[in-house]
Amino acid sequence: MLDGLFRPRAVAVIGASANPYSIGHIVVRNLVDYGFKGPIFPINPKGGHIRSIKAYRSISEVPDEVDLVNISIKADYIPAVMEECGKKGVKFAIVHSAGFKEVGEEGLAREKKMVEIAHHYGMRVYGPNCQGIQNSDPEISVYANFTFVPMKPGSISIIAQGGGMGELLKLHLHKVGLGHRLYCSYGNECDLTMPEILEYYGQDEGTRVIMMQTESFKDPRAFLEVAAGITPHKPILAIKAGRTREGSIAVSSHTGSLVDQAALAEAMYRKAGVVQFTDSDEMIKAAIAMSTQDLPAGRRIGLITNTGGPGIQAVDEAVSRGLTLATWSEAGRQRLEESLYAEASCGNPVDVVATAGPDHYFAAVDTLLKEKDTDMVMVFFVTAPFVDLDGIATRIREAAGASDKPVVVVVETTDKWAGLIDKLRDSGLPVYEFPEDGVRALADMARCRDLRQRPREEPPALEVRREEVEKILAAGAGGYLPQDKAYAVLEAYGIPTPPLAVLDSADDVDAAVTKVGLPCVLKVDAADVVHKSDEGGVALGLDSAQAVREALATMQDRFDGRDARFILQQQAPAGRELIVGAVEAPGLGSLVMFGLGGIFVEVLRDVAFTVAPLSRPEAGEVLRSIRGLPLLEGVRGEAGVDLAAVEDLLLRFSRLVADFPSIVEMDLNPVFAYPPGRPPLAVDVRLKVR
Amino acid sequence: MLDGLFRPRAVAVIGASANPYSIGHIVVRNLVDYGFKGPIFPINPKGGHIRSIKAYRSISEVPDEVDLVNISIKADYIPAVMEECGKKGVKFAIVHSAGFKEVGEEGLAREKKMVEIAHHYGMRVYGPNCQGIQNSDPEISVYANFTFVPMKPGSISIIAQGGGMGELLKLHLHKVGLGHRLYCSYGNECDLTMPEILEYYGQDEGTRVIMMQTESFKDPRAFLEVAAGITPHKPILAIKAGRTREGSIAVSSHTGSLVDQAALAEAMYRKAGVVQFTDSDEMIKAAIAMSTQDLPAGRRIGLITNTGGPGIQAVDEAVSRGLTLATWSEAGRQRLEESLYAEASCGNPVDVVATAGPDHYFAAVDTLLKEKDTDMVMVFFVTAPFVDLDGIATRIREAAGASDKPVVVVVETTDKWAGLIDKLRDSGLPVYEFPEDGVRALADMARCRDLRQRPREEPPALEVRREEVEKILAAGAGGYLPQDKAYAVLEAYGIPTPPLAVLDSADDVDAAVTKVGLPCVLKVDAADVVHKSDEGGVALGLDSAQAVREALATMQDRFDGRDARFILQQQAPAGRELIVGAVEAPGLGSLVMFGLGGIFVEVLRDVAFTVAPLSRPEAGEVLRSIRGLPLLEGVRGEAGVDLAAVEDLLLRFSRLVADFPSIVEMDLNPVFAYPPGRPPLAVDVRLKVR
Repeated sequence: MLDGLFRPRAVAVIGASANPYSIGHIVVRNLVDYGFKGPIFPINPKGGHIRSIKAYRSISEVPDEVDLVNISIKADYIPAVMEECGKKGVKFAIVHSAGFKEVGEEGLAREKKMVEIAHHYGMRVYGPNCQGIQNSDPEISVYANFTFVPMKPGSISIIAQGGGMGELLKLHLHKVGLGHRLYCSYGNECDLTMPEILEYYGQDEGTRVIMMQTESFKDPRAFLEVAAGITPHKPILAIKAGRTREGSIAVSSHTGSLVDQAALAEAMYRKAGVVQFTDSDEMIKAAIAMSTQDLPAGRRIGLITNTGGPGIQAVDEAVSRGLTLATWSEAGRQRLEESLYAEASCGNPVDVVATAGPDHYFAAVDTLLKEKDTDMVMVFFVTAPFVDLDGIATRIREAAGASDKPVVVVVETTDKWAGLIDKLRDSGLPVYEFPEDGVRALADMARCRDLRQRPREEPPALEVRREEVEKILAAGAGGYLPQDKAYAVLEAYGIPTPPLAVLDSADDVDAAVTKVGLPCVLKVDAADVVHKSDEGGVALGLDSAQAVREALATMQDRFDGRDARFILQQQAPAGRELIVGAVEAPGLGSLVMFGLGGIFVEVLRDVAFTVAPLSRPEAGEVLRSIRGLPLLEGVRGEAGVDLAAVEDLLLRFSRLVADFPSIVEMDLNPVFAYPPGRPPLAVDVRLKVR
Repeated sequence: MLDGLFRPRAVAVIGASANPYSIGHIVVRNLVDYGFKGPIFPINPKGGHIRSIKAYRSISEVPDEVDLVNISIKADYIPAVMEECGKKGVKFAIVHSAGFKEVGEEGLAREKKMVEIAHHYGMRVYGPNCQGIQNSDPEISVYANFTFVPMKPGSISIIAQGGGMGELLKLHLHKVGLGHRLYCSYGNECDLTMPEILEYYGQDEGTRVIMMQTESFKDPRAFLEVAAGITPHKPILAIKAGRTREGSIAVSSHTGSLVDQAALAEAMYRKAGVVQFTDSDEMIKAAIAMSTQDLPAGRRIGLITNTGGPGIQAVDEAVSRGLTLATWSEAGRQRLEESLYAEASCGNPVDVVATAGPDHYFAAVDTLLKEKDTDMVMVFFVTAPFVDLDGIATRIREAAGASDKPVVVVVETTDKWAGLIDKLRDSGLPVYEFPEDGVRALADMARCRDLRQRPREEPPALEVRREEVEKILAAGAGGYLPQDKAYAVLEAYGIPTPPLAVLDSADDVDAAVTKVGLPCVLKVDAADVVHKSDEGGVALGLDSAQAVREALATMQDRFDGRDARFILQQQAPAGRELIVGAVEAPGLGSLVMFGLGGIFVEVLRDVAFTVAPLSRPEAGEVLRSIRGLPLLEGVRGEAGVDLAAVEDLLLRFSRLVADFPSIVEMDLNPVFAYPPGRPPLAVDVRLKVR
């Protein structure tokens, strides 16, 4: 439990000085200004007082128990101070000071030493090189942080690795008159980890929504487990910094070249049901909606406006975000027609027209919220100077308050009528400036709901021959498996492949042809040949033993001296090309990649990542998350592929890489998928063992 | 010239009443409150005075000349009033009143009558059913509009079809403390048209950027010509409302099903060099940047920050918007290292660190702006409480002011330091809240610059046999051309097609095979067969006369009684599938569509639209605007296609549909494109003649 950190009974500030620009001073000031409910003990070797509060020369002189210390003294002095804190029985130390891991070896050693001392006394270290924490709960009101955004109670909690981003998220809430609940920016994460804090946020009753920004995951597995435990009851919204950075895992195959930190984040967010964002403004606006509104039951939006253009903008945004326009029942339409002006339009959007008053707005909002085929409502409202604006706000509130469906409001007005916005916000309605903002917030809520609604299942039990694979991998440790061994691994896990034979010399051809059947394909098998086709290592459409012999001779020449073997495979009939890959993600297990093969992966990067092993619903979801899905489902009369069979292949593949952490990297590229009834075939495989 | 409208010497307000909620009253109030520089004449049958200004009983009683009248009386009374205005010599009438075209036939008749009267007296009508106009030029300061957003001088002008959207655009400028120049929301466009107003904006010296919102184009050709004349010297930023609406042109072919109002707008914007937006907030923020900053010379961005996270957000956004991170010269890097704190990082982003002061910021901004490989700079600045903030703002201004390169600033702060933002804005620097906003504004400026830099050429002269096509089209008027005729049209315009023969009966097979060569393909030719393959109307890979005979017999059976003919074509070798189409765009000419064929058009809608005829640079641009471009350029060792030859095909195709407006719709689907040296082949064609 992190109560000692987020709900401390007393705080000491080590490094508190009279210099108003010093971190210690600012922390004391923030604690005082925001009304911390416990005693504050400034610590300064010179004693005296800081902002009228008596300062002690050392923590050991403090007469009371202290749960939390904020430390902002030079890194060199910290070990000694840490000893004192430990002896004093302090529970948590926030170390603002820099000069640790981030400055190299020496700093890292200092960091380790510090943690060692702390642990000796059962104390936990937060940071170092960090901002600190805040908890706006009126019972505590702790601003143990040196930044400047004002604090007031709210229900959105923020956990940011980067202080600048954490501050930015908090700042926008402040700018629109909202507060936040818990806040932390955790810096070097030397001891207390992000997942531990996240777990605490998950348990905090005052936190309704969590926003997070992460630069790198120190312990991906712990994050995944904690996040997955929170998302069923509390939305987590996340930005991964560095989504476009070149991946740090440089491996030579397709999968490898696509798996990077961004893929890791995507995979974990998907698995854990975290709603991912790329735009910070959009994330904040979604959090605002989720902090007061229930998630919608579906994707059907009802729009209300009093002027045409912004309604059209809303429609455009809604459709392009995957929402659908709700339609009204006959009774609903009739009520609209009876309640609104004759010149109003009663389709979707409902245009109540600029002269509409409170009762018109009420009728529109209330009608739409009662329509069973409407899942969410956005109300646009330009403050025409000739109507009862205050009454409109009151009646929108009234209608929205009577429903569990989410409602967002977009108000087009100047400061002159800012009171209206306050009034709507005070009643818990999210208010935005642009119609696109309102629609996006609702669309993001629908995304969140989709993630939450997924069936939660365990990965299924599969019939596989595990021992067989264990032996093959053990024998092949330290490199790429020979093709025949790699295919044997697939077969042992029930992943269909074409019949295969190894050709060590021309003498093997006849027997091999008999074994695999015609037509067949000859392939080179060498660890240093990654793209076989590009190097002339694939001969397709061989329809006789003689053709095989000729192709073999050519290829033997071509790869002379390159430690190459050759395999013969039955040529699989052309199918829809898929790519299925896996790459080791240190600290997590294996990431599984799925996509359409060929040009789709090469040009459009239309791939999805997830974490092995997969449950059946997860396999279905990753399959359906690619843009090229219509190609798998079948377009314009063309048959689609056997999706259930592809799902099964994904399950088996993900099970395989999860069962064997020694698989560093593995690609099925391509897999040919066929129409229903015919299982897909993995026609090429690369498998690298540690 | 529209000076009488936007720079009136005197304004009369017909329908001015004492009721403060009436449009007439509000217009008078706005004219007075914003200090209109000429006399205001309220007109009210009862006389009296409105807001202390003497009201006349009719316009004819007004003692002075009147350039502009605002009319908000009932539609029924307008004709009589229009007569009076005409006799009085009024130049422009803004008709706010509704009850015209938008209410149906009767209203349309009233509208026509009104315009007739006006024209009789040489008067122009603006509206009806509209807001009005504004001009913030201090010499005029006319707010002849009944809305509520305060007016102050600025250099961004707004032209919106929808009043709600116009107001929304103006409102955000107001909220961030900026003004606007000209404003109009033009309603029914019964007489004075949007292109006329746009042209006036183009000539207005005080207008530096134009923002527009359009719902439908009454005269696309005029818009295109006017816009193309403005964009070389003044940016036009545009939102087309209804971009996701199902197209209004319902035609059966591929092209038709993709061409809609959104495509029309895209084509015209591309042709005219208008920068298109889908998000209103983004458009406004881009306009703000363009209103004070010069366009960048390229896409290389330099980033400066004093905290890490927002810098990473900026990098992510920049890369995903097609900007590249600038790199510094050795001298530049050295200057940064010497000028900044030791813990600063001197890569891109430059992190000056939170303790950086005025001189550090100056050095960073000045260094980057002087780097020859940096085209634009974004400065992020969180107001750390321990530095000289005012000094930082001053020095950023100083460095930015000395360069022609665009600079945008993102300030993370609270109201407490709002003065800093004002200070930066007053010096002409665009200031935003989120790093993504700043980057997007710069990326949009780069888009604008790319459009402006395009070589402007006339469509080239091509050797074509125009008379031949004229005859074929005349003979085929009123429906789809038979295949052989359609191919003949292509050949006459130099678009390569495979050899072809018509098969009227089995007797023709031998001669036909001799003519076209083997292997060949048999196709049905019938007006009611749109997707030939789907209906079994294509037999591929026929490698003997006998095979052709058999296929013909099967097909004759299949299409028995459907008025079908059959053609035999040499089977073109498989190439990269393209689709080239055209559809008539009433009032404009022909839209040309280009895209990758097959799944790309079906699933990904990866197509681009433009207006025929094309110049050579335009053909190159449309070719390069599709997402699948790498497939044409060649990926991973695969040869690309002959882009110059495809460009030539596009030029010829666009010339053809431009030369013959009777071509209602035309598709080449697919065109096979081949590696360099081999011209593309149009292997299927549909051509519908009016």
